[in-house]
Amino acid sequence: MIDYVFLGTGGGMPMTFRALSSLMLMYNGRKILIDCGEGTQVQMRKYHTGFRDVDIILVTHTHGDHIFGIPGLLSTMGNSDRTEKVYIVGPKGIKPVISGLLYSLKYLPFEVETIEVEEGFYLKQGKDSLEITEEKTELWVEPFNLKHRIECIGFNIELARKPKFDPVKAKTLPIPVVYWKHLQNGEIVDFEGRTYYPEQVLGEPRKGIKVTFIGDTGYFNELSDHAKGADLIVCEGTYGDDEDIDKAKKNRHMTFREAARVAKDAEADDLIITHFSPSMGNPVEYRSNATSVFNKSFVAYDGLKGTINFKEE
Amino acid sequence: MIDYVFLGTGGGMPMTFRALSSLMLMYNGRKILIDCGEGTQVQMRKYHTGFRDVDIILVTHTHGDHIFGIPGLLSTMGNSDRTEKVYIVGPKGIKPVISGLLYSLKYLPFEVETIEVEEGFYLKQGKDSLEITEEKTELWVEPFNLKHRIECIGFNIELARKPKFDPVKAKTLPIPVVYWKHLQNGEIVDFEGRTYYPEQVLGEPRKGIKVTFIGDTGYFNELSDHAKGADLIVCEGTYGDDEDIDKAKKNRHMTFREAARVAKDAEADDLIITHFSPSMGNPVEYRSNATSVFNKSFVAYDGLKGTINFKEE
Repeated sequence: MIDYVFLGTGGGMPMTFRALSSLMLMYNGRKILIDCGEGTQVQMRKYHTGFRDVDIILVTHTHGDHIFGIPGLLSTMGNSDRTEKVYIVGPKGIKPVISGLLYSLKYLPFEVETIEVEEGFYLKQGKDSLEITEEKTELWVEPFNLKHRIECIGFNIELARKPKFDPVKAKTLPIPVVYWKHLQNGEIVDFEGRTYYPEQVLGEPRKGIKVTFIGDTGYFNELSDHAKGADLIVCEGTYGDDEDIDKAKKNRHMTFREAARVAKDAEADDLIITHFSPSMGNPVEYRSNATSVFNKSFVAYDGLKGTINFKEE
Repeated sequence: MIDYVFLGTGGGMPMTFRALSSLMLMYNGRKILIDCGEGTQVQMRKYHTGFRDVDIILVTHTHGDHIFGIPGLLSTMGNSDRTEKVYIVGPKGIKPVISGLLYSLKYLPFEVETIEVEEGFYLKQGKDSLEITEEKTELWVEPFNLKHRIECIGFNIELARKPKFDPVKAKTLPIPVVYWKHLQNGEIVDFEGRTYYPEQVLGEPRKGIKVTFIGDTGYFNELSDHAKGADLIVCEGTYGDDEDIDKAKKNRHMTFREAARVAKDAEADDLIITHFSPSMGNPVEYRSNATSVFNKSFVAYDGLKGTINFKEE
């Protein structure tokens, strides 16, 4: 399962009533942050998420409202005796931006590796943190291109699910029962000169969890392809009012209705809309513009928490 | 007169109950900011100070808790259609730090000039902002060295006061009354082949206003020399408890009692202590450690506002 906390849900400028967009995903006690505007570390205190265990910060783009919280957060993590490497993963051009922001942080007790990502990557549980790995693991992160005013990417975060153990298949194998567990755990077993593989005791592949994060972008048709079948789409919806469609097009942002269209076309389970314009006092007033297109549309707020479980099968 | 607002009063890390240290001074509708930690722009919203008219940011040192709010603030000022130059004035070494922080802000609608300051400078009221000038004006800013773990400076901000007009002296001059006003306003007047100077119609010099800002530093004797005769000393007091004196020495910070000693030795009018350690929940509990040394010691809190007037004469 994956837990999430919306640390902030605003775009553009931090307001007293709404912090800048930042989403925390939690898996097995480890944390993945998506975007980190000014004030994100205070939101982490406010919602008691902790910050020491943030292993990777996925950055959609280098507009200040998505990145100016990074140096302060890393600095505070350094004061909390973190020593494990932190990854910052973002679009082309992010390296000099992050390097500039961190110029004064010469003595962090951990390494920061900034990656201009072009392809998907696996994450594995290291000693005390998530690490990017060449190995095939259960946790996969894939970037895709968005259409904002500057280079901007979205992310799919996918957690694979192991197939069920199938005792009927297992019983057909001429091996002692004690080996079943090893095979179930993905190990290969050699017994009496023959080799046995996990697939031989496992059932059909099962659907995992897919979270699609759509950062700042104007609407385009292919968005729903990236989000296909997602359990949860988190999508920007800078404007709630349908009448702001021209502003949305001009500024390369989306309306609630457009976000809902992505979720509908993607046949997603749930949609949570976030990244609201500072001019929108109470975004939930516009929720029906989304639900009339895609029923399971929700409007985020600072501190919104939830859990995505594997589906019953 | 000079108005002030303590936007934040914390050191080290921003807390939910206390923002990072930042002091706003206001003179004739223009704003001078001293330090700007993460979240300062939100505090400006909270306390309704506005941010468009910040003309100069004085920076004591480049620790993150004093500077990480700068890029966000400038970005928001840019979105508010400011076009006048903003100065960032700090100690040796600040230029590459600021330049790094602002790397992603390529399209600000105003110029940012960063100055590694070594000597005092005058400020004059330009068209729509305060400008650093070679002219002698009523507003003087002077840096002085502190003793922190990195290069760190304090600031004296001094507002001169014009001498009173002296009609007795004016009447002795063989010029028409219409010229008195020009002389009073500091102009030189030529009349019937002779030159008259402002001093010829003005009384004795009058005491202006002096604000001394003592940023992060360990205590040292000469601090009171810099603060001599100040109307207001704003001084760091990271630790309220006298028992934290060893921590203060080790980390190059001060206790409330030490701050009070500076104010006493400087024969200042008022002392306001700020920059509290995150571990101090309620700094005012320790106020008596200061007042027992210097009676007019006050403990700052986020949002504390006040005005410093010229003294009656």
